[in-house]
Amino acid sequence: MFQFNSKGTSISVEGFKVAGIHCGIKKQKKDIALIYSDIPCDAAGTFTLNKVSAAPNVISKKIIDQQNKVKAIFINSGIANACTGVQGFNNALKSQSYLASKMNIKPCEVIISSTGVIGKQLPIDKLLKGIDRIIPELSEDGWDNSAEAILTTDLRKKSFSIKVQLKEGEITLGGICKGSGMIMPNMATMLAFLTTDASIESNVLQKLLTSSVNETFNKISVDGETSTNDMVILLANGISNTKINGGSNNYNDFLEGLTAICSEMAKAIVSDGEGATKLINVIVKNACTKEDADAIAKSIVNSPLVKTAMNGNDPNWGRILAVAGNSGVSFNPDKVTIKFDDLPILLPDYFADFNEEEAKQVLNKPEVTIQVDIAEGNESVTWRTCDLSENYVRINSKYRT
Amino acid sequence: MFQFNSKGTSISVEGFKVAGIHCGIKKQKKDIALIYSDIPCDAAGTFTLNKVSAAPNVISKKIIDQQNKVKAIFINSGIANACTGVQGFNNALKSQSYLASKMNIKPCEVIISSTGVIGKQLPIDKLLKGIDRIIPELSEDGWDNSAEAILTTDLRKKSFSIKVQLKEGEITLGGICKGSGMIMPNMATMLAFLTTDASIESNVLQKLLTSSVNETFNKISVDGETSTNDMVILLANGISNTKINGGSNNYNDFLEGLTAICSEMAKAIVSDGEGATKLINVIVKNACTKEDADAIAKSIVNSPLVKTAMNGNDPNWGRILAVAGNSGVSFNPDKVTIKFDDLPILLPDYFADFNEEEAKQVLNKPEVTIQVDIAEGNESVTWRTCDLSENYVRINSKYRT
Repeated sequence: MFQFNSKGTSISVEGFKVAGIHCGIKKQKKDIALIYSDIPCDAAGTFTLNKVSAAPNVISKKIIDQQNKVKAIFINSGIANACTGVQGFNNALKSQSYLASKMNIKPCEVIISSTGVIGKQLPIDKLLKGIDRIIPELSEDGWDNSAEAILTTDLRKKSFSIKVQLKEGEITLGGICKGSGMIMPNMATMLAFLTTDASIESNVLQKLLTSSVNETFNKISVDGETSTNDMVILLANGISNTKINGGSNNYNDFLEGLTAICSEMAKAIVSDGEGATKLINVIVKNACTKEDADAIAKSIVNSPLVKTAMNGNDPNWGRILAVAGNSGVSFNPDKVTIKFDDLPILLPDYFADFNEEEAKQVLNKPEVTIQVDIAEGNESVTWRTCDLSENYVRINSKYRT
Repeated sequence: MFQFNSKGTSISVEGFKVAGIHCGIKKQKKDIALIYSDIPCDAAGTFTLNKVSAAPNVISKKIIDQQNKVKAIFINSGIANACTGVQGFNNALKSQSYLASKMNIKPCEVIISSTGVIGKQLPIDKLLKGIDRIIPELSEDGWDNSAEAILTTDLRKKSFSIKVQLKEGEITLGGICKGSGMIMPNMATMLAFLTTDASIESNVLQKLLTSSVNETFNKISVDGETSTNDMVILLANGISNTKINGGSNNYNDFLEGLTAICSEMAKAIVSDGEGATKLINVIVKNACTKEDADAIAKSIVNSPLVKTAMNGNDPNWGRILAVAGNSGVSFNPDKVTIKFDDLPILLPDYFADFNEEEAKQVLNKPEVTIQVDIAEGNESVTWRTCDLSENYVRINSKYRT
């Protein structure tokens, strides 16, 4: 039982103060954000699997792995601090310890995160001056500013909150994220920062977050790329006095709420993918195993041919079937059914007697679902992507400072 | 020791007669091709690994697997005869046996191949009438017409021949190919048909072909997709009386020549990739294993971010390094060197002090080489791709009948 308080408008989670300002990494737009809790929080996180991991990711992952309590998350946009060597690592540590000293907390209580250009050094003086200025701005109403400050080429701010009615008590979950903007000259980053007033020990929190991320953020693709800076963080301050223990009645309710908010965030990231004109849900049904379903869905969401067809509202089932056939999964193509939303496009034995105009109308919407039923087993999965437009290419080839 | 007779112009291999005409699958352009040898040929082939394999591929693969002697290859473009069920399979068999009866040979001596739209049935009456008309057209000078007749949205005809001076004797290798055109509404196909007057038993021929294909056609990517119809066929009629046995002095010389012609064909396919403005060679150097080198190179040639950067002449080493980091291969990013042609862009410890204008000039050419040296071992590999342009998206989303 949960209810969205807000999607994309102002949010609030008790005990958390937030701010977002401009410090000079970008020319004019807000570029640093701070999330702060007086109460030390249990913390969980998931990080990029890219072997080229940015300095802030290495530092923050260590804090999560050691199950430290966390009081602050400091994020900058504009420069990713990835591929920046010893100097970049030292800059990351410097910003972390400077913030800690100014707030009278320990460096290991500060998660840091960056997104933006790879291979460029942070303007550390501007950043430290920014820290001086952002701390007084902290407020319970700061979420909107922080959501703005973590964007790169995203077009829309993304903040969400949700109230979850548990068997015992009620809790709030809220947070911000940014997605598939690409900042010149480099690589997109997916960031999400979530907070809750529930009371959850870090090992349980990590289990909950990993489980939700696997079903949501790990099942989206804009262009098949994985950034050097991807990071999802969840802080729990326990202020609601509602406990979520492993195996408790509350556990599954909380997980459902957490997955719901992560799912909304993931959809918002994909909808705002570079050049995207529509959100595409890809449901693969009746595979023998979850792994098979994932492999087929992943092939489809990463296929330039399917994504360009969707861009052109082209009911092109042949491309979808051929891409599924190239996923490495064994299935009988004769038995496959493909639907766009609920409109059958391909029935078993290659029966494709649909109305072309009707199919085009289904595809010509801001959200479309492709269902692929391979009739081999009982496992199903949902992935999400966006279409591939000329604008994606324009953004990534033509615009560079 | 080998020498190219011709690239893209008229070719000839003794004993082979060839033709290409229009039969009515396409509106106006040539759409069927025939390659014929009076002498029964040893034959080798490699086929798509896509689970959704087209009817002609299933039929032709069986001929190769059974080591049958082959006298003819019949190809149509315009319709792929993939995902066409029982009717499609019967149409493929019908065209094969009709051709065989008209030429007084056995159906199992006829390799068949198709490329074009998925999910559409062949106009079998037009095709059979086309067979009646193409047989009288067979001639030693027909290669150019056949090269034209197998194209889909390719812009350029692709025919090559080569003379190989062996330790004992001299042989000719020649053939045609088509590539990464995409035919509305469906999937690209890579086809190559090679002939030689050398005398080579089919098991040796298969070993030679597999080896050459692995180093050439299997190391190119236009958009990471694998078609339902991919096929490479090599016929040897033995007319030169020059024998190539396994382990003979001639074996390696022939292999070198075969790999050279396959390499030229692969380059021609990539250069003519949809929307391509340039050919990109990706050399990954000093990996621990061939598999590591392949995995990194494959990530790079399939990365939309690298390919859009190349389209925009953007010396964007951060994207290349980040994509390498996402390949699953363990390496130390601190040690990586990246060059465009011979211009150093990134030196170890993230030293990237290159001249931006100079780098842009290197990239602004019809052929560019990206060298990535990961300094971990001794294995190197070369892959090839093209850039990703707005025109690729336009071709695949907007144009449909």
